[in-house]
Parts: sequence; C-alpha cells; structure tokens
Amino acid sequence: MQQSDTISAIATAQGEGGIGIIRISGERAIAVADTVFRAASGRKLESYETQRAVFGHIVDAAGETVDEAMVLLMRAPHSYTKEDVVELQCHGGVMPLRKTLALTWQAGARAAERGEFTKRAFLNGRLDLTQAQAVMDVISAKTEKSLKMASGHLAGHFSAGIKAMRHDILGQIAHLEAAIDFPEDEVDDVVTDEVERNVVDVRNKIRKLLKTAHTGRILREGLMTAIVGKPNVGKSSLLNALLREERAIVTDIPGTTRDSIEEYANIGGVPLRIIDTAGIRATDDIVEKIGVDKARAYVDESSLILALFDGSRELSAEDEEILDLIAGKDALVLLNKTDLAPVLTAEKLAERTQAPVIAIATVTEHGLDDLAAAIQKKVYDSGMDSGDEGSFVNDERQAEILRQADEHLAAALRTIGAGLGLDFISIDLRSAWEKLGELTGETVGEDIINEIFSKFCIGK
Amino acid sequence: MQQSDTISAIATAQGEGGIGIIRISGERAIAVADTVFRAASGRKLESYETQRAVFGHIVDAAGETVDEAMVLLMRAPHSYTKEDVVELQCHGGVMPLRKTLALTWQAGARAAERGEFTKRAFLNGRLDLTQAQAVMDVISAKTEKSLKMASGHLAGHFSAGIKAMRHDILGQIAHLEAAIDFPEDEVDDVVTDEVERNVVDVRNKIRKLLKTAHTGRILREGLMTAIVGKPNVGKSSLLNALLREERAIVTDIPGTTRDSIEEYANIGGVPLRIIDTAGIRATDDIVEKIGVDKARAYVDESSLILALFDGSRELSAEDEEILDLIAGKDALVLLNKTDLAPVLTAEKLAERTQAPVIAIATVTEHGLDDLAAAIQKKVYDSGMDSGDEGSFVNDERQAEILRQADEHLAAALRTIGAGLGLDFISIDLRSAWEKLGELTGETVGEDIINEIFSKFCIGK
Repeated sequence: MQQSDTISAIATAQGEGGIGIIRISGERAIAVADTVFRAASGRKLESYETQRAVFGHIVDAAGETVDEAMVLLMRAPHSYTKEDVVELQCHGGVMPLRKTLALTWQAGARAAERGEFTKRAFLNGRLDLTQAQAVMDVISAKTEKSLKMASGHLAGHFSAGIKAMRHDILGQIAHLEAAIDFPEDEVDDVVTDEVERNVVDVRNKIRKLLKTAHTGRILREGLMTAIVGKPNVGKSSLLNALLREERAIVTDIPGTTRDSIEEYANIGGVPLRIIDTAGIRATDDIVEKIGVDKARAYVDESSLILALFDGSRELSAEDEEILDLIAGKDALVLLNKTDLAPVLTAEKLAERTQAPVIAIATVTEHGLDDLAAAIQKKVYDSGMDSGDEGSFVNDERQAEILRQADEHLAAALRTIGAGLGLDFISIDLRSAWEKLGELTGETVGEDIINEIFSKFCIGK
Repeated sequence: MQQSDTISAIATAQGEGGIGIIRISGERAIAVADTVFRAASGRKLESYETQRAVFGHIVDAAGETVDEAMVLLMRAPHSYTKEDVVELQCHGGVMPLRKTLALTWQAGARAAERGEFTKRAFLNGRLDLTQAQAVMDVISAKTEKSLKMASGHLAGHFSAGIKAMRHDILGQIAHLEAAIDFPEDEVDDVVTDEVERNVVDVRNKIRKLLKTAHTGRILREGLMTAIVGKPNVGKSSLLNALLREERAIVTDIPGTTRDSIEEYANIGGVPLRIIDTAGIRATDDIVEKIGVDKARAYVDESSLILALFDGSRELSAEDEEILDLIAGKDALVLLNKTDLAPVLTAEKLAERTQAPVIAIATVTEHGLDDLAAAIQKKVYDSGMDSGDEGSFVNDERQAEILRQADEHLAAALRTIGAGLGLDFISIDLRSAWEKLGELTGETVGEDIINEIFSKFCIGK
C-alpha cells in the first residue's frame, strides 16, 4: 500500500459533545501523533501494535497539557484509509479540538480536504466508488429506510450487481474474441446467439435497476413536497401533524454541509422535505393568508403536492384555481375538516381531479394513516420489494451511466441484427463494460472523482 | 471496582460528522455490544483483550447491517468510568447513531442520564469533583486561556492545592489531639503557637486562591459585555471589529445544552460575551438607532461596559446621559472616529468620567490593541500570574466553599486567642477540613453531586 502525505481533520460533528476525534492519516501519522501526545505509559505510539487504544495527554509545543486523550492506533493497511491512521479522542469541545488540530498541523500534518479520508480509502481499494458515495448517504440519511438503502450500498450490495453484469459482459467479449482469433472453432451464428441472449439478460437487469431510481432518489434526497390550499384550510395544522408523526426521528440537523437547517417529515420511512417549512411555521397566521399565487410557485418546485380543501364548505373560486393548478401534477387531494358537518364530499371532489382524494381531519388527526399509505404507494409505485433498498439506484449520475451502458448494449444488439462482424459487437460490449465501470470507479476519471468527493464534509 | 447497571448514549456532538460514537458502560457493556456488533473476525468482543479496536458491523435484531463500525473495548478498570466500557464508532449521522443507540437499549442497556459517565468516573475514584467539573469546562471552553484553566483543573492542579491544605489542617488536628490525649508531653502554648502559624498560612493560601475567582469565572463563563453609545457612534463597527479579531477562534456553537447560539469575542484570550449580539448584527441599521433607553437595560445585565463617543463632534445631551449611566460602573470609555478631525478630545472626555478613556477608530481599527490590553488588565487586575490558570477558582460554589472554610479557620484563630481548650480548636479545624473536602468531593452529599452532574450534557 502506497502511503501519501499526512492529513488531519476533526472527524466528529461540530458542537459540544463528550468525545471529539481528530483523525490523522498518512505516512507520518504516527510520528505526528507522537509529537502532540504523551502516553501515560511513557511509551511512544510507535512502539505499540496496531488496533491499540492508548491513554494519555495532548501536549503543546511547550509540553503543557491541552487535554486528556485516548488514542487509537491503526497501522496500514488495517485502517479506514489503508494508510497509517491515528485517532485522537479528545473532549468534544470546539477549543480542545481546534487547538489539538492546530498542533497536528504544527507537527507536520496538513488540513484534510473534503472527503479526503474516504477518497484515500477509495484510491487504496478499500471501498469502490458506490460504497464511497454511500458513506455520505449513511451520514445524512433522514429515515430508517434511507439508512437501510445507504448501508446496503456501503456493504456493497449495489456494486455486487454491477460487478456481476460487468463479469457477464466481459465473458461475452472473451467469447467473441476467441471466435475472432480462432474462426475455425465456432460458427458465428452460434456465438452471436449466445451473446444476444446474454446481452438481453443484462439489459433486463439494468432496466430493473433503473426502475428503482425514482424510489432510491427519494429515499436519499427526500421528496420535495408542497402543501397548498386556500387561506385557513388547515395547511399549518397539516404540517404540524406531519412533523409530529414519529417526532423522535424527525431530524433537525444544523447544516454542516448546507447553509440552512432542513426539516424532514418521516412518513412511514419516506423523508418528505417540505418546502418553506420555516416560513410556514414561523408565521402561522401569515401563511394561512397565503393564497394561490404563492401556491403556484410552490407547485413548480415540488415533486409532490398536498392540496387541501375544506370539507365543510362548497368549492370556492380559489379552490377551483388550486384544482387547475395541480391538474396533471403529482398530487394528493386532501379533503380536510371532515370532523365538521360535511358540505363538500370526497365524491364531488373526485369528479374535479385525477389525483387520489383522501378524507382527513387535521384537528383529530383522522385520515393521516391513509395519507401516509398513499405517499408510500406513490414512492414505491415502481413495484419494488421495499425490503431490497440495498440495491437501489440512488442518484442521477448512476441512473445516467446505466442508461448509457444500456444504450451501448442496445447498439450491440443492433450490430448483431445487422449481421456486422464479431469485432463490431465486441466494441459495443467493451463500451458498455467501461461505462458500467464508472459506477464502481474502476474506469472513472480523476475529475469525476474529485467532484464526487468535494461534496463530502471535511473530516470524512 | 464495583460495576453498576449498563448505560449507553451518543457521546459525540449532534449533527453530521465523519465519525460518531455510542458509549456503553457498566457490568453488561461487553454483552450489550456483542449483541449489536459483529466483528469481521467472527470473534466475540468478549474474547478480546482490553484496549483493543475491532472492526465489524452494527446489526439489528434481524441480523441486517445498520452501519460499519470500529469498536473500542476497555475493560474495568482501564476505562473512563473504571467500569467495562465499549465505544461503538459508527458513521457520524443522526440516523445511524440513533438507530444504533436504540439497538443498545433493546440489548439491555438503558439511556444514560446527563453526566452519568463522568459521575461514575467520580464515584469510582478516577476523578475528584473539581476534575469532574473541569470536564465540562474543557468542552465548553471559549478561548485558549479558558481551555488552559480547564485543562489545569482536569489535570488536578487545583485539587492538588486543596489537598495540600487539607493535609496541613489534618496534621494540626492530629497534633492537637495528641496534645489532648497526652497532655504531659507538650505545653499547650507551644502547640497553639504552631497551630496558629499553620492556620494563618492556610488562610493566606485561601485568600490567594479567592483572588483568582474573578478572573477564573470570566475565563470560564465569559465576560458579559455591553456596547453602548448614541446612534451612529459606531457600535456595530466596533462589534464587527471585535469579532473579526482572531476570527478563527471565535466560536459559533450550536446550542446543545443551551437554547440559543451564543457568540464570544476572543480578546487576547478573554472571552467577551457580548449582549444581544444577534440583535446588533441582524439589524445593523436598527441598532444604530437604539439610544439611551436600551443602553440602560444593557448596562444592568453586563459586567463590562464599552461606551462609545464620537470624537468628531462635541458631547451631546445623549452622550451626557450615557456618561451618567456608566458612572460608578465597570466601564471603558472609547473615543471613536479619531480618524476624523478631532473635536472632542480624550482629555476633555476624561474630565467627565472615572473610567479609562481609550482613543480608537473602528474604521481603521486604530486603538483596538489598546482596548484589548485594557480589557486584559481589568480581567487580570488581581495581579495573578496569567501562566497559572490551572489553579484558578472558577465558579461561585467553589468560591463560597473557600470563604466558608476560611471562616472556620478564622474561628479557630479566635478560639486560640480566647484561650479556649485545644478540643475547641480541633472542632473548628475539623469543620474547615470537611468544608474543603466538598471541593474535591470527599465530603459532599449525594444531592450536591446530582446537582453538579445534572448540568452536564448527555453522553459525557
């Protein structure tokens, strides 16, 4: 394993906690740690075996104690990056961590770039590219289902499928090339028949994977959701009810990689990212006055619209405008206030919209289960087994690569159909094989790698 | 070492980071970890030696992978709590940590209370009470000097002084009791002379310590500072200049133990907690319009007042009101806009106030060094060696205990002066000895202990 220059960063979240970790990785990691750390045993870290925890103190250049620390030594290749890694477990405050980090820099480490530890893990072959991407997805997972998908990717379930396809394609390429090199051994038609069968098989697998992209992306990024309706129809109450559901798992994450606090409602494992939550919540009375104009803007930004109507009154002109607005969009129509005397019925409303109509009462929380079921149905409508999140396509780059690989395979089938030479088929298959390698990172350029890791946080 | 029931909590700060830690402590810590963790080696944690790091996966009850994890095993007494401790290092996201924490609870651990790990460390004799309190101070330290003080306490510098005093007092008690038991051996006057000399000596040490309380408290809690002055005199500019100073070490800590974000300016190691920073910064133009009324409220809340005056104009009626307001208060008078043609001079201003007058120009940042020096002088005015932060008294409880102990010692001297019996002197000394024991926790009640640890964060 080749070691590179030595980097260090705070690896735990910002803020106050019992424990905070400075991670150091690279050729001089142990030497850097030995400069800033004094083991209570009096021994140098250099003298310890790998995978050992050593208690002692962080000291500054003058030998004064900065903090207590438990230090974890992991020698190459038995570490996250496969390089020598030392973790300094200090107290989890801003000052002890910043001070200790600065000491590691004085001792010869440099500040790690975003995602540089994971990038090294990838470059050193510990993780493939889909697994490396999954690291960030595990960290930022919004619901248990999102976490399950990310963990599955991290464990390599998704890569395993891709690798199997590449293996199949490579087998066909070998077959074709053998037939080209030794034309006397095989009849072309027999060869192309088998290649065709195999390529169709791989294309089916790709198609099945692409079907997961819709759900995968929602689980990873959240479903952009707008709540619209005329004034006083109950938008704030609905929002509050949605956020109250499984409140313990609703995440309020101070943005370390983003500029603002994002809020997600966890509806049966589906993370709904509700547009302008802050605005709706901060100014309950103002938002209730917001009418159709604002709704129009929300609708354009969202992937799912929850449109509220008042069941205790006849449809108004504003309601009609909202119905026009959501026509043809991905919406759920919610007939609210069904706890009051019914005036507008679900049947009447259903005549005016293609969207499913669900009767609710935000006051009593009646119908919210039906709403959750309807949302889950929308998200999982591709018919995927929801127990199989580990092999979902979960970002647009992956989906696009699969589409392009599929296109090369389609080209191979056309080449076969046109009766062109075996070498032409081989060229198409090789293009598909290379394209799929971009998913696992085996055939991907440095610029793409840099772009992917630049989205990570520092310390990962 | 007696082990108690098994507790677990997230030990790292909330939010997103590369690494997050679940800490488990107690009799069944290793068994709990063995339920939720599968080592890649296939071995049980139980089979590993202490201080070992073991790589593997967190799994749920169904055996499905939740996250990758590096697990750190520390067997009693080689751990923070002196009990069996297991740290599960997962990825630092909200979902993987909450999910893993919930699994440890299903496996038999219970949720740790605030500060419960450190409380166990204290109860098991790993830390004394001043050291335990210093743990939180290290975590929440606002400047390097605050950190140095907290680290010194954590390392036991402060306790060492207290223990030495208790040792001295106990020696005198023994001396007195020997003289009581064997009156034939010694002459009372000789005994009381020596006791008196020793008690005076201890009282001097206490007085010296109490002198550090002012500075210690500021270093620990920050100096509540108000910036006042008439409209458009440059309050926002001053604030921005103060916050820009050593910007890298100004801490913006998302409140994990507090309700709001606090902001500290680090002025030569002194943390200034500036009142209503958010208000001043959010609404620059509004604050500049804030006049004397608001200043009056600020002044009451603050320990230090920075009062600004416009050097390019004559004193106005409003300026006069501000001068009245700060009379007798702990203030620094800042003559601003000295970059413009001088109208109001420092000499003229000095005639109107007892407070030191410092000429500054927030636009050019002229005079800010003088301001920093004046603030440091105010904070360190007790004449303490600023290299000695490790033995500062840093909270009011500690100061009050020292005052009470001193009172018992004063009583002992009065008893000696009144020529009362040796046993009366011994009683006074014993009271002082016990009182000082409340600092280190040797003679402190359970309610006090619970109160102290209830101020900790969960996971510490």
